[in-house]
Amino acid sequence: MRDVNWLHGLNPVKEALRGKRKVIEVYLQRGKSEGSKREVLSLCASLGIKTSYVDRSFFSSFPKGHQGIAARTGSLRSYSLHDLKEITTGRGAPPLYLLLDGIVDPRNLGAIIRTAEAAGIHAVITEKRRTATGETVAKTSAGALEYLPLIRVPNIKHAIKLMKEEGVTVFGAEADGERDYWSFDFRGPVALILGSEGKGLRETVRKACDYTLRIPLLGRVGSLNVAVAAGVLVYEILRQRQGKEAESSPSNQG
Amino acid sequence: MRDVNWLHGLNPVKEALRGKRKVIEVYLQRGKSEGSKREVLSLCASLGIKTSYVDRSFFSSFPKGHQGIAARTGSLRSYSLHDLKEITTGRGAPPLYLLLDGIVDPRNLGAIIRTAEAAGIHAVITEKRRTATGETVAKTSAGALEYLPLIRVPNIKHAIKLMKEEGVTVFGAEADGERDYWSFDFRGPVALILGSEGKGLRETVRKACDYTLRIPLLGRVGSLNVAVAAGVLVYEILRQRQGKEAESSPSNQG
Repeated sequence: MRDVNWLHGLNPVKEALRGKRKVIEVYLQRGKSEGSKREVLSLCASLGIKTSYVDRSFFSSFPKGHQGIAARTGSLRSYSLHDLKEITTGRGAPPLYLLLDGIVDPRNLGAIIRTAEAAGIHAVITEKRRTATGETVAKTSAGALEYLPLIRVPNIKHAIKLMKEEGVTVFGAEADGERDYWSFDFRGPVALILGSEGKGLRETVRKACDYTLRIPLLGRVGSLNVAVAAGVLVYEILRQRQGKEAESSPSNQG
Repeated sequence: MRDVNWLHGLNPVKEALRGKRKVIEVYLQRGKSEGSKREVLSLCASLGIKTSYVDRSFFSSFPKGHQGIAARTGSLRSYSLHDLKEITTGRGAPPLYLLLDGIVDPRNLGAIIRTAEAAGIHAVITEKRRTATGETVAKTSAGALEYLPLIRVPNIKHAIKLMKEEGVTVFGAEADGERDYWSFDFRGPVALILGSEGKGLRETVRKACDYTLRIPLLGRVGSLNVAVAAGVLVYEILRQRQGKEAESSPSNQG
């Protein structure tokens, strides 16, 4: 699924060791904060994974933030739309999918995957083209890419069609959506679509949605960062599904 | 308030021209997407601001994403805690402050400022030390730094004390907060405090809060990106203040 089978940074490597990806070998920079790497060494020992100490120059081709640790890994399991049934079965909640119509910034994509995994999204679906890839995505996902099914499809409109056939309501987020997001009921099967940074949803994708929603903006800036927007929306879905309201509580009496 | 009085990128420069900061001169790269700069040129003309065409090499010291446009500016108005009364008067909503206990990544800080401005936060308060500064903050704030009062204080605990004296309820966000955030009532005067990436709130700051709250995490990653967390929390505050609930609507019948 990904062409780059390298991870770097302490947490991504730890997550990979605990997760569903096969780790082939772990590389540690000699003399660099060795104390913090004890847990990695003990995980590798218990899993029978090879570890090698290397010089600093080994990391010259890695982005900043490698922390003197990297892992060569097998590929993540590759998911397709055919796996959606299997992915959602037994989750105890109606299907909840996040579709991304072209997120090109790897940090944004990583942060979205991190949020999606934390909020219990069942799968994230992106187009193969027009989407960030690479190590920065894995790194900024804080390991979530190890756990969250990420499905890369040739054509996101085909995925929308398929979901609608399965009874999933499809919501597109855009600046001039028809209603504020909090006015929709998200307790049934839901797919949420976010557009690319700057450009939003493509017209053809927007037309394929059942509803469009907007995040109200009270200030003068015209939009939120796309990863922030994803967080705002998926946590409102989660709040509704958990049936949660503020208690008439002792707070704000301070 | 900021030592760097330069902005770059089309939107930040446009926002500065429309905002409260004095723009001294605008620099445009000769021959680079001139069509997209017409609005800037006409704004400058109407405001009597000097524009200069420069070579590509002029931008070599700017970060990526300058789009061949930069502006030399006066300082933003500098705010202090003494200005809080003036800032909140006439806003038509109870005070709402966001306090940041050490956000070191400029992209995170920029995204938080962008969200805060969009959600109608009255002021963002940071410590002078332990906080990102510079052009990347302005750029990733998408211009919001031009509109949102940012108050840099020597000691954030002093700001908390002062707010509590004014009847503001202070909420600290942390992974093991006492209750899920959506169970609190945010309709009175509120200050929300977020800790630094990775480390969270300092113990002394946590103790100064009236309540601590957590964002529920259903997956295996241990936290959200701090800018995403800020978005989730401030938009729940906004939702409560606007008294909004999902309508028993025709959605999810799709």
